[in-house]
Amino acid sequence: MSIIRNRKILNDPVYGFINIPDGLLYEIIHHPYFQRLRRIRQLGMSYLVYPGATHTRFLHTLGSFHLTNTALSILKEKSVSVSDQESEAVLAAILLHDIGHGPFSHALEDLIVPNIRHEELSLAYMQFFNRKYNGALDKAIEIFSGAYRHKFLHALVSSQLDADRLDYLKRDSFFTGVSEGVISTDRIIKMLNVVDDELVVDIKGIYSVEKFLIARRLMYWQVYLHKTVVSSEMLLRNIIIRARELTMKGKKLWGPPALIFFLSNTQFVLDDKMLQHFAMLDDDDMTASLKIWQYDADPVLSRLCAMYIQRNLFKIRLQSEPFTTEEIARLKQRVSETFKLALEEAAYFVVSDMLTNNAYKPDSGIIKVLNKDGSTSDLADVSDMFDHEILSQTVKKYFLCFPRELA
Amino acid sequence: MSIIRNRKILNDPVYGFINIPDGLLYEIIHHPYFQRLRRIRQLGMSYLVYPGATHTRFLHTLGSFHLTNTALSILKEKSVSVSDQESEAVLAAILLHDIGHGPFSHALEDLIVPNIRHEELSLAYMQFFNRKYNGALDKAIEIFSGAYRHKFLHALVSSQLDADRLDYLKRDSFFTGVSEGVISTDRIIKMLNVVDDELVVDIKGIYSVEKFLIARRLMYWQVYLHKTVVSSEMLLRNIIIRARELTMKGKKLWGPPALIFFLSNTQFVLDDKMLQHFAMLDDDDMTASLKIWQYDADPVLSRLCAMYIQRNLFKIRLQSEPFTTEEIARLKQRVSETFKLALEEAAYFVVSDMLTNNAYKPDSGIIKVLNKDGSTSDLADVSDMFDHEILSQTVKKYFLCFPRELA
Amino acid sequence: MSIIRNRKILNDPVYGFINIPDGLLYEIIHHPYFQRLRRIRQLGMSYLVYPGATHTRFLHTLGSFHLTNTALSILKEKSVSVSDQESEAVLAAILLHDIGHGPFSHALEDLIVPNIRHEELSLAYMQFFNRKYNGALDKAIEIFSGAYRHKFLHALVSSQLDADRLDYLKRDSFFTGVSEGVISTDRIIKMLNVVDDELVVDIKGIYSVEKFLIARRLMYWQVYLHKTVVSSEMLLRNIIIRARELTMKGKKLWGPPALIFFLSNTQFVLDDKMLQHFAMLDDDDMTASLKIWQYDADPVLSRLCAMYIQRNLFKIRLQSEPFTTEEIARLKQRVSETFKLALEEAAYFVVSDMLTNNAYKPDSGIIKVLNKDGSTSDLADVSDMFDHEILSQTVKKYFLCFPRELA
Amino acid sequence: MSIIRNRKILNDPVYGFINIPDGLLYEIIHHPYFQRLRRIRQLGMSYLVYPGATHTRFLHTLGSFHLTNTALSILKEKSVSVSDQESEAVLAAILLHDIGHGPFSHALEDLIVPNIRHEELSLAYMQFFNRKYNGALDKAIEIFSGAYRHKFLHALVSSQLDADRLDYLKRDSFFTGVSEGVISTDRIIKMLNVVDDELVVDIKGIYSVEKFLIARRLMYWQVYLHKTVVSSEMLLRNIIIRARELTMKGKKLWGPPALIFFLSNTQFVLDDKMLQHFAMLDDDDMTASLKIWQYDADPVLSRLCAMYIQRNLFKIRLQSEPFTTEEIARLKQRVSETFKLALEEAAYFVVSDMLTNNAYKPDSGIIKVLNKDGSTSDLADVSDMFDHEILSQTVKKYFLCFPRELA
Repeated sequence: MSIIRNRKILNDPVYGFINIPDGLLYEIIHHPYFQRLRRIRQLGMSYLVYPGATHTRFLHTLGSFHLTNTALSILKEKSVSVSDQESEAVLAAILLHDIGHGPFSHALEDLIVPNIRHEELSLAYMQFFNRKYNGALDKAIEIFSGAYRHKFLHALVSSQLDADRLDYLKRDSFFTGVSEGVISTDRIIKMLNVVDDELVVDIKGIYSVEKFLIARRLMYWQVYLHKTVVSSEMLLRNIIIRARELTMKGKKLWGPPALIFFLSNTQFVLDDKMLQHFAMLDDDDMTASLKIWQYDADPVLSRLCAMYIQRNLFKIRLQSEPFTTEEIARLKQRVSETFKLALEEAAYFVVSDMLTNNAYKPDSGIIKVLNKDGSTSDLADVSDMFDHEILSQTVKKYFLCFPRELA
Repeated sequence: MSIIRNRKILNDPVYGFINIPDGLLYEIIHHPYFQRLRRIRQLGMSYLVYPGATHTRFLHTLGSFHLTNTALSILKEKSVSVSDQESEAVLAAILLHDIGHGPFSHALEDLIVPNIRHEELSLAYMQFFNRKYNGALDKAIEIFSGAYRHKFLHALVSSQLDADRLDYLKRDSFFTGVSEGVISTDRIIKMLNVVDDELVVDIKGIYSVEKFLIARRLMYWQVYLHKTVVSSEMLLRNIIIRARELTMKGKKLWGPPALIFFLSNTQFVLDDKMLQHFAMLDDDDMTASLKIWQYDADPVLSRLCAMYIQRNLFKIRLQSEPFTTEEIARLKQRVSETFKLALEEAAYFVVSDMLTNNAYKPDSGIIKVLNKDGSTSDLADVSDMFDHEILSQTVKKYFLCFPRELA
Repeated sequence: MSIIRNRKILNDPVYGFINIPDGLLYEIIHHPYFQRLRRIRQLGMSYLVYPGATHTRFLHTLGSFHLTNTALSILKEKSVSVSDQESEAVLAAILLHDIGHGPFSHALEDLIVPNIRHEELSLAYMQFFNRKYNGALDKAIEIFSGAYRHKFLHALVSSQLDADRLDYLKRDSFFTGVSEGVISTDRIIKMLNVVDDELVVDIKGIYSVEKFLIARRLMYWQVYLHKTVVSSEMLLRNIIIRARELTMKGKKLWGPPALIFFLSNTQFVLDDKMLQHFAMLDDDDMTASLKIWQYDADPVLSRLCAMYIQRNLFKIRLQSEPFTTEEIARLKQRVSETFKLALEEAAYFVVSDMLTNNAYKPDSGIIKVLNKDGSTSDLADVSDMFDHEILSQTVKKYFLCFPRELA
Repeated sequence: MSIIRNRKILNDPVYGFINIPDGLLYEIIHHPYFQRLRRIRQLGMSYLVYPGATHTRFLHTLGSFHLTNTALSILKEKSVSVSDQESEAVLAAILLHDIGHGPFSHALEDLIVPNIRHEELSLAYMQFFNRKYNGALDKAIEIFSGAYRHKFLHALVSSQLDADRLDYLKRDSFFTGVSEGVISTDRIIKMLNVVDDELVVDIKGIYSVEKFLIARRLMYWQVYLHKTVVSSEMLLRNIIIRARELTMKGKKLWGPPALIFFLSNTQFVLDDKMLQHFAMLDDDDMTASLKIWQYDADPVLSRLCAMYIQRNLFKIRLQSEPFTTEEIARLKQRVSETFKLALEEAAYFVVSDMLTNNAYKPDSGIIKVLNKDGSTSDLADVSDMFDHEILSQTVKKYFLCFPRELA
């Protein structure tokens, strides 16, 4: 396969086996900063709706790693030149692409560390490892951030057809039991090639790619934007918002020190101390704390936490038009009366926002197809199924969450 | 199917869908005591070896429930008389059969509540629900404890071919990716029947049953008694033992109150308060605490916890003969020197015990086969594959755990 | 389940087990007219492209039967009234819906019996069985032909969401290994209901239905209209056309008498003798004859058959515009010169026609969705994914087949 | 992977994709002698019991080819030296290992060409290709016949753990739907290694190997020796025996010339003419002929064929002791009376013989296990599950077939 010797074989129910090579990559995987991903669920709150979906970012990351490794072998077989250092760099980049995710991933992304996005955190951890290993990740960082001269290596890590998307669709489908998302990763990866430094997919794989885009769209509505999932995320978000409000007002909430650290502030600096604290946090800290906050003296926090632990989730309504401010105000009023809360407290129990779903955003990079004559086209131009109108059409839905007692 | 109306359909990656009927069973499932099983992994520490194995007791319990429900339908089709009350009672019994499990299930079973077995705890929770629902679980309790007059109903819940075993083998195989355990639950359940109030399996299903027994055996060695799993369990057990020792000596460890409650004592009374505390505990509390104990002042506790969090697990050796006391003493001596610990502290880093595995223990109930002529036989007498010698032969292995640094 | 006692359990790799009830249905399945479907491949020539696709109409029919039976159970659970006679009638109708298929199914449908469509043949066999069983299939025939008063029973057998389509997509996907067609038949069937005598699908199943329509479309291009499949069908069709031409001119070709019977004429009467002859024909007769015709004196027949047996298939080109008559004439000329054949003989080696594909033809019956408020809508009106423009848009492709030697 | 360039990707429902390399191997696969395997079912008559089991020797052979190719890659990764010529030779040997199989494979093996075994026929076809390609298969023939100096290459083609066995168990399990045979081919192949020129399996794969041996045993009883399969084989065998008897007496039976060629004699010479005739025969010729022989004047042949086509198979009884000659004679007498046949004609309707099953025959080559210390052991010595007694123990069953009318 390559000069990289395999060190370990890991069982994976999705691909059977994942080979972990020796050396730098092995060491990164065994660092506590990486092992921590074992305690962060890939799909956040979705396990409340799909009880099988308890799989972790750890496994997703290793799956993406495996697909990247397979893609590299296939490209090399097709005489695409990839050096051993480049291989290791892409693999390191995919390993670390999600390391900046915190507890419950996307659901709390902008709440735990409000001023820093998870990609910036991932990059900061990469730089940490780069210092630790004396610049061994220079190329990985270049590839991750899109600066490396061979663009297709970045595309393996981040593009419409990257290993991340290929793995998560297949894996989330496997663990949720929603067979709509089962995709032929094998087929798509076998059809990859490189033309003019760009990642392309052979025209023979076009139906698999179409299927992949549709599967992604369907998985969005059936899993990622499932209304009960959204409703439970809104509940959890309001818990964190309230807990921070109380903490910043001086209240001493029970909780792991790292959690309290992040609840005590809203602006953070990306230094080593912050990275250490962040690496101490995972899903477990949240639920361990929520269980105890059920009995807190604050009527808002305790009620929200009790709702969460007893799975008495918000009722959620969906519609194509935004909900009116009157409607929302009326609900808050009713909450205030029903639960005997002040109006600003009642606001924690009513949430309205927008969901959106795009199968294929042309702005976030197109998919290039390799025609039989060696030319390349945009998928949208050669597909029988998709045309630009459908592609550019974003489906929007608005939601309104409120306590089940008011339904 | 029956007069029980279905209330909810649950996605399950193993069986596709699980129907949850309305009424008592629905209410039990939605009680926090039951929902808590969502936060207890079915296979305890095994996710450290099989990263897909993060599935929960919640899902296993609902899977067992589903198989029991299917078995009841099949038996009714074969004109076995089962009343609606009996159906609900068996289903309630299977739902609650594992509710007495605590964090990390079997691994810590005798450590969290040393004087009470998990079956007693399950029974106590059943009695709690029975009081809550004014005796609605009388029959379920009778069936669970084997006192009910129709013995086959107890056999569905607890026997060599019960729904619990059928589900866990198939499910654990699915989530670990160890295909050895894939069994034809469908086939076995379709072959069930009742003769003289006993659960029997039609002779046409004999190969499926043989396969099931062998799969169970292989799963024991490949998963349940996997040496890295055993090694990580020993580490976790010593952490709890040390934490209790320190707590009982008066040290104030960081931790959720319910955990501290159980660490402060070794003898417990099965009262409502204890059940409430126990129901507050799950896997999350353990790992949240272990992460913090890494930095505790006690050199034993902090080192053990750091080993756990950094996945620097015990090295483990297996052999057919017990390890000698000299060998064990020598190791403790080396630990004491290497880590600069007192000898009694060093003892926390060396563990030796025995593993054992039986495919089919004749004493724990035989499997009855229904012959073509209507007579029944013991499986052992009609199987070509098994004979009594193999069946009664227990394979024993002895293990020795010690720090990797001494290897 | 019902009063119909099960007689036999059949292994099916797709659904696990299929229960065959006793009585009329069992007898039909065991009649030679039905057993003959064991020797007709479901996908005709596709096994030349997808070597796993050797599954038969026999198994597809039993699969459709199984799905219909499951759908009936689900509908009854939802309090839809279906009498036992109606159940048996629908099941008989689905069992016999494809019995009029001949060798290589659709590929030769209009060639073996040019003046009769396979639906008419199916109906004729139904009437044969109805005479044999003294009118026991009266209701089945009514349902099959759409005359029965409860329309939803016909819809189970023939509609956009009938058991036939649900089974073939899933089964063809399984045996070809083209995972694009894997659909949640379970999910769709669980969502069926009946409103005002019409078959509807619950709004909760809408994503599964969308996925099903897309999977069908993708399967069309990847399997059903795969260009090598089309190319081999054109070859086989020309073999039959040539063999009939020679036979009608008086030549005695080697072959089973039933095959010679159909090659000797173009107009047939639907009488018992014809049904008997037709029931003697299956895929085996064709390939057994083709192998021998390779050595026939006729230069057209022998060359075509040699191409088939040696898998030296036509080259095929696809394009969006029709091929010009000049282009086609030029090719025939070249064939004539290359193979030293007369121009009218050369015509057997050049074929051009049109392929077409519709995911969802509104004219062939819409899919009704049951909204939460009890009202029903057309799928096209409530789906976010489909709109009428896409639905009514037919993708056309033109193909041109010719000998590989001319490429 | 290797210097062998891939020419074609084939869809396979079992492994996803099979890569066919260019050159000699591609040409062999496309020769009519090889393509003929498309028309020979892998499991002969088993499709009468397991209707999904219509998969062909063609696909099984390509599957074995794929596993061999994978095993070669793995061995090379482990630094086992295999030259490109050796790779091609092993792959050619596995491609051709079954090419000597005739219609219905094992069932008729000793009847179509009574004096030549299928291995000799395979070898003769290899020599044919070797002449055609000027000695390019010299090494392949050496490997196939066990004469090549590197023994492990022969072991890949023929041993207890060869690619043939690994593929057929997994594939037959897939197509029959008997999940008992699902084995971890991936896992076993990843564990292969070579020590002292012998193929060995790493001790870490021991449970997978044990599971494989057991799965093989179970598949024997559930599929390969399934009593209805045996009963239908006995029927087909007697049809061929009778047809030959009549033909050799001078009767002109209807049938393809190649079939008549083999029915006209019992002793054959392995010359080119015979190989050509044999290559014209496949499953199709048999069933095409049997359908017509139903109406033959001979009362034995016509009755046997009608039983076959109408699936009115022999009743079969199994027991541990041989059936007595009196019992058999009595049955023949009853057949003679019931069907008004002479006693020697009646003999065609009563068959008794022995079935046997061995999971692991020590005489046919042991499985070597590679211990952690680099030494090797016989599997039987290190397995906890198997001991020599069980391994050497052959289970025998005797069967008696007779017309259903006499049951």
